[in-house]
Parts: sequence; C-alpha cells; structure tokens
Amino acid sequence: MERILTNLKLVTMEPEHGYQIIDNAMVIIRQGKISYAGPQQSDWQDTVDSQADIVDCNQALVTPGLIDCHTHLVFAGNRANEFEQRLNGVPYEEIAKAGGGILSTVRATRAATEDELFTLAMERLAGLKRDGVTTVEIKSGYGLTTEDELKMLRVARRIGEQADIKVSTTLLAAHALPPEYAGRSDDYIALVCDEMIPAAAKENLADSVDVFCEGIGFSTEQSARVFAAAKAHGLMIKGHTEQLSNLGGSALAASMGATSVDHIEYLDEAGVDALAAHHTVATLLPGAFYFLRETQQPPIALLREKGVPMAISTDFNPGTSPIASLRTMMNMACTLFRLTPEECLRGVTVHAAQALGLSEQCGQIRTGMAADLALWNLDSPAELSYRMGVPDLIARIVDGNVFYQPKNQ
Amino acid sequence: MERILTNLKLVTMEPEHGYQIIDNAMVIIRQGKISYAGPQQSDWQDTVDSQADIVDCNQALVTPGLIDCHTHLVFAGNRANEFEQRLNGVPYEEIAKAGGGILSTVRATRAATEDELFTLAMERLAGLKRDGVTTVEIKSGYGLTTEDELKMLRVARRIGEQADIKVSTTLLAAHALPPEYAGRSDDYIALVCDEMIPAAAKENLADSVDVFCEGIGFSTEQSARVFAAAKAHGLMIKGHTEQLSNLGGSALAASMGATSVDHIEYLDEAGVDALAAHHTVATLLPGAFYFLRETQQPPIALLREKGVPMAISTDFNPGTSPIASLRTMMNMACTLFRLTPEECLRGVTVHAAQALGLSEQCGQIRTGMAADLALWNLDSPAELSYRMGVPDLIARIVDGNVFYQPKNQ
Ligand SMILES: [Zn+2]
Ligand SMILES: [Zn+2]
Repeated sequence: MERILTNLKLVTMEPEHGYQIIDNAMVIIRQGKISYAGPQQSDWQDTVDSQADIVDCNQALVTPGLIDCHTHLVFAGNRANEFEQRLNGVPYEEIAKAGGGILSTVRATRAATEDELFTLAMERLAGLKRDGVTTVEIKSGYGLTTEDELKMLRVARRIGEQADIKVSTTLLAAHALPPEYAGRSDDYIALVCDEMIPAAAKENLADSVDVFCEGIGFSTEQSARVFAAAKAHGLMIKGHTEQLSNLGGSALAASMGATSVDHIEYLDEAGVDALAAHHTVATLLPGAFYFLRETQQPPIALLREKGVPMAISTDFNPGTSPIASLRTMMNMACTLFRLTPEECLRGVTVHAAQALGLSEQCGQIRTGMAADLALWNLDSPAELSYRMGVPDLIARIVDGNVFYQPKNQ
Repeated sequence: MERILTNLKLVTMEPEHGYQIIDNAMVIIRQGKISYAGPQQSDWQDTVDSQADIVDCNQALVTPGLIDCHTHLVFAGNRANEFEQRLNGVPYEEIAKAGGGILSTVRATRAATEDELFTLAMERLAGLKRDGVTTVEIKSGYGLTTEDELKMLRVARRIGEQADIKVSTTLLAAHALPPEYAGRSDDYIALVCDEMIPAAAKENLADSVDVFCEGIGFSTEQSARVFAAAKAHGLMIKGHTEQLSNLGGSALAASMGATSVDHIEYLDEAGVDALAAHHTVATLLPGAFYFLRETQQPPIALLREKGVPMAISTDFNPGTSPIASLRTMMNMACTLFRLTPEECLRGVTVHAAQALGLSEQCGQIRTGMAADLALWNLDSPAELSYRMGVPDLIARIVDGNVFYQPKNQ
C-alpha cells in the first residue's frame, strides 16, 4: 500500500546540523517506510500508483515523529496527596515514615493487575500522543520482584502492540532497594543479575537495562555488575547517573557501551569526555529539574563543545516529573537549560532515537526509515519549543498509518 | 430545560476555606443556572421533570469551570523567531533594533483583519478549553490606536458570542507607547482617556480598563488618569503592577477600587496592606515569571497572612508567556511560588471570578450561580495542580450546555 503526503513543509533533521527545511515538499510511503522525502516534483502524479492514498497536507509543517526516550509510564497509585502535604508544610521524613515516597508507588504497582496498569498507562500516554510522540521508552522499576518487574514490562510491550505507538522497554529493577532487602543491597543486585535479567531476556521483554546509580540508589560497583549481566544477555544498557551527585556512573556506563546516560546535572568534564569518546547520548530531563527545584545545571556548554548528542525526555513518573508533555520539556530545556529550539527538536528526534539504539529506524525523515511523522499547524520548527498548550498537532503517522487529532482540541 | 448531573464527586469551593468535597453528589441545572448542588438523595428521580436530560457522570470529579482572568489572547504575528535568536545569542538590543519585541506584535496586529485575529485567537483558546476553562479574560493592547484597540476588543467580544466560552474584555490601550507617540507619553495617555475609553464604553466593548504601570510602561500619575477616566465611564479597573520594580501602582489601583492587580513580584508590605484594605485580588502570573527567568518572588506569605485573595492566570501573550495552559500555571504556582493545590484551585475559580468582578456569577458551585462546570477523570482536586499534560478533562459545562472532550486526547 502506497501513501503520498503532498503540499507540506518538511523538517527532515537529516544531517548533523540545521533543521534541513524543504518547502513545497512531498513524502512517499511504501510498506510503512519512507521511499521518498523531498521537493514535490511537478509531474509526481505520473509516477505514483493509481491506488495510492493521497493526503493533501495543506502546507502543514512535518517533522519526524517525536520520541520520548525516558519514561516511567507504567505504575499504579497516586502521589498527589504527598505533593499537597509537602506544600502544606509536612516534612518529607514524616511522609516517608507514613509509607509515602517511591515505596507507596511500589506497593500500589505490586497490587495492581496488568489490565489496571495498562489502562492507567494508556491515559498518560494520551498526553504524549497529543504532543506528536510516535515512539516512547517505558521502564519498569516499581515492581522490584521478578514477577512484578516482568508484569510491568509485559504491560509496556502490550502498549507497543497497539497500532498507534512504538514502545522501547527497559528493565529498571535496580531503581530502588525493595524493603524486603533492607541492608542487603548486594543480595538484591544478585537477584537482578541472576534472575530478573535472564528472565526478562528469555521472554524478550526488555530492550535495555537501566540502573539508578546514586547515593540513595546503587553504587558504581553494583551498577557495573548489572550492566555486565545485561550485556551478557544481549541487552542494551543505560543509566540514571549524576542526578544528585557525581559518582562517576556516567563514565562507567559509557565505557561499558551505554546508549545513554540520563539526568547528569552533576557530570564533570571527565564524564563529558567519556560520553564523547564512547558516543553515548546525554539525556536531559528538565521536568525533574523543574519539579525538584534543582539549581545544579547539567554541563550544557561542555556537552555542546565536545559534540555529545543531547536528548530531551519527560522522565514521566509520579514522584519527580508528573508531566506528560514532551513539548513542555522542549520549552523547559530552552528556558531552564538554554538549549536552542533546534537542539531541542534534535533532542526529541535524532538523538532520542540514538538513546534507544534506533538511529537506523526513526528520528529523521530519510529514505528507508520508518514513516513515523508528526504534522503540525505551525509555520516554523522553533514554535515547537517556544509555545506550549496550544493544540498544534494535526496528526501522527506511525509506520505510515495516519492518526488524526480531533479538531479544536 | 432541566439537566441533571448524577453520580459525581463535587468540589464546590463554596466557602472561604477548604475544597468542600461532596461525594455521591448531584447537580440540577435549570435555565443555565445551578438550582441544586449537593448530596444525591435516594428519591431524586421522583422530583425531577420527566423531560430532564440526565447525565450519569460515573464518579467524575466536578469543579467550577476554570477561569483564566488575565490573557492577551488576541494578536497576530509570531515571536518564535526572536525566542530562537535570543537562545542563539543575539542580544536583545539587536532584536529590538531590527523591529522585534512588542512592536513587532503591534505591527502584525494592526495589519490583521478581525477575521484573521479571530481565527488565531480561537486556536489558542482551544488550549485553554482543554484545561477546563469556561471564562476567559482577553485584553487589547497590541493596537495602540483607537481603531485597532476597538478592533481587538470586537474580536474578544465575538469570541464570547460563541456558545462555548464566556469572555470578559479589558481595554489595555496603556500597554506600551506606540512609536507615533515617542517622547509624548502624556499625549498618548490623553488619547487613551479622551478618545479610546469613551469609544470602548460607548460600544460596550470593554468590561475593564488596565494599565501597564512600570518604568518601561506608564507612571503612577498616568495610570491614575487612565483609572479615573475608566471609572467615569463606569468601567472596572485593574493594573499590571510591580512586575519589574516597586512604583506603588498596586496601592494606587487598589485605592481607586481595582478588582485586581497583576504580577506583583515587587509588591512590598504597604502594597499588600492596600490590597487587603480594598479587597483587591492579587493575580499571580507564574508563566511570565518562569519564561523570563525572574528570581524576585511575589510576597506569598504576606498575602496569605493578610488574607488577600490570590488568583492565578496564564498571562498568555507572545512575548513573555506563550503558554496556553491554566493547569500548567497551577503547577507552576505550586512549584515556583509554593502555593498549595487548594490555593491554586481557588485562584482559578473563586478568586479569578472576583478578579473579573464576577463573584456572584461564577467560580463556585452554588445555587443560583451559572452552571459553569468542569468534569475531570481524577480522584482528588490536588491532582489538578500536581500533574500536567494528561488529558484529564471529560467535559466543560457552560451555562448548562455540555461540551465533551474527544476521547483519548
Ligand atoms: Zn527516570
Ligand atoms: Zn499581561
């Protein structure tokens, strides 16, 4: 089946620099892939299949479908009450003692069925979809038992089996120490390496394995064990690193071949050099920075100077970034981190694809890539980062299938 | 015509404090007004009109329709290019010299037809609607000639004639000095007072009159002249005051009977006392604070202590707050200004209504008030401030008419 998009303004993001805008362009899609993207030739109608579905895009701006490369979209429970308590002056320690914090999400997630988790995640996902997201990464990490981590990953895979979005899954069993293992973190890491990773790999439930490498998470030594086990099972690796302190987790992850290291507010120059040397993506999560009112900025100038690819993501999660909007993240990356709108768009397309090991599949508008596109009622790509809240999206295209947004929403 | 909403969780916001939640509630609407809102009686079906339209709300959370009490929604042109230039390091002076800044919006707005302005504003308004907004204030201020200011207000009135949202209009001719009046600001203020205000009043185009009282705007003396002229024509008054410095504009406006003073980052204790004494609403605009990366916080603790009502609004405008989301503002008011979720909800309902002089018409769920409601797929009102981006709105009800959101958006 052939589908032809005519009369559009293409933002291909193809090479290393610049939006690469093509006015009066067209896209030809065959079998879900881009077979042509470029200037609209005057005689194009002579060359196409008479059965082709022709979509007049009416001068819409067309970008690669956006990619949200770091989310915790699958969980149960609600932390709005904690948010409210803290703003009413209840100390964090008191909330934690009353069973709040991440462990409240763990309890609720363990208690939930796959169907319940699926329904909740789909509601949140609708927010990302209306921002033009066509690929989303989803992590486990609120189960913290083999059974519950696999349950979360099954839900993530099931979301990916829906026709209208692609899902990359990540086992984040090393997210927090479950209460059953209090004081025995090495034993828990052994469980992650010896049981969870093999089980997730065997059932093909995880594309990547992630670790929260931090004083309140796991040490670099423990992280290295998890990464080694993941690689032994053929899985990609990535890390939550240098968010609250500089442990060297980013350099470790990069040296072991991580596709991305995420957060990295406390990354130092040696760490930036390690990312550059190993072609590891630096994933910036301005939503968590904003929500936690952090002041330590990620080393943007150094990353830029040394050519480290920067991705941007929502980090959607109930504790530190309950924000299901990638457009909001693009604006925050500009406003809070001083990225340019072009860096932001690259951060949610080309570089986000790289962060998921999908550089050859999506993130650019290029012949041979999946026809994953977003159509916008906008004049210029800078508007994607500049303005928030206006329903600018006309449609998402995933593997060549068109999903229109309802009008006036 | 009678409409009955059953099976809902009411958040009435009725008295001075607390959400006032009523579980298992119902609302009876007659002629667009609330005729009952309270517990669902077991025998309610015996007492209602057999012709009534009965809507089972399936345990939805129902709040007053949200009120965005400070926007600049009507304008033409696009400032995304300036946003991008600044992030690419072009100095503000250079952008201004090249015709950028507010005057670029003035040029584009003057050149636009009413139809063009209407279409652009309706696109932006769609963003506010999907956040549950049922009343919106819209200011002029990018025309700066009598003709162009009235043109903007006509567009605002026309938006209000649509069935699905209510509009309060504000003449903000004293927004900036038009280039034709360079060096003659008193002459421009005379034009505002002697020609624009009378014309707007005569055509019933303005509910309120606003002034940008600031070093880069107009002085307190000039503001007082504008306020006096507005009052002489029976219009309400309000001010953009104490945003960038403390000129005393808030106290002046309050002493002259302003319904609200807006921004107020630099308001001092004497100013807070003036607001308290005159029952003037303090409208907080966290979007502009965020977008401009300001560090001077409005005096929240003092406002709270002295019982000054706080409203929250988007200040949607192309230069300093291109954010068409009132839910985002609620989150920012919590995160950046440390308001509680309850203060935020009051700030976009009860207090926003007061800021527009509509306290008796809307902003609470109370017998006799307009049936302006928002139905949410949420468990608790704190979630309205806590989470962003998820399409939680089920429907808006305006004067008893139900406008459903499309599913899965
Ligand atoms: Zn995360
Ligand atoms: Zn304003």
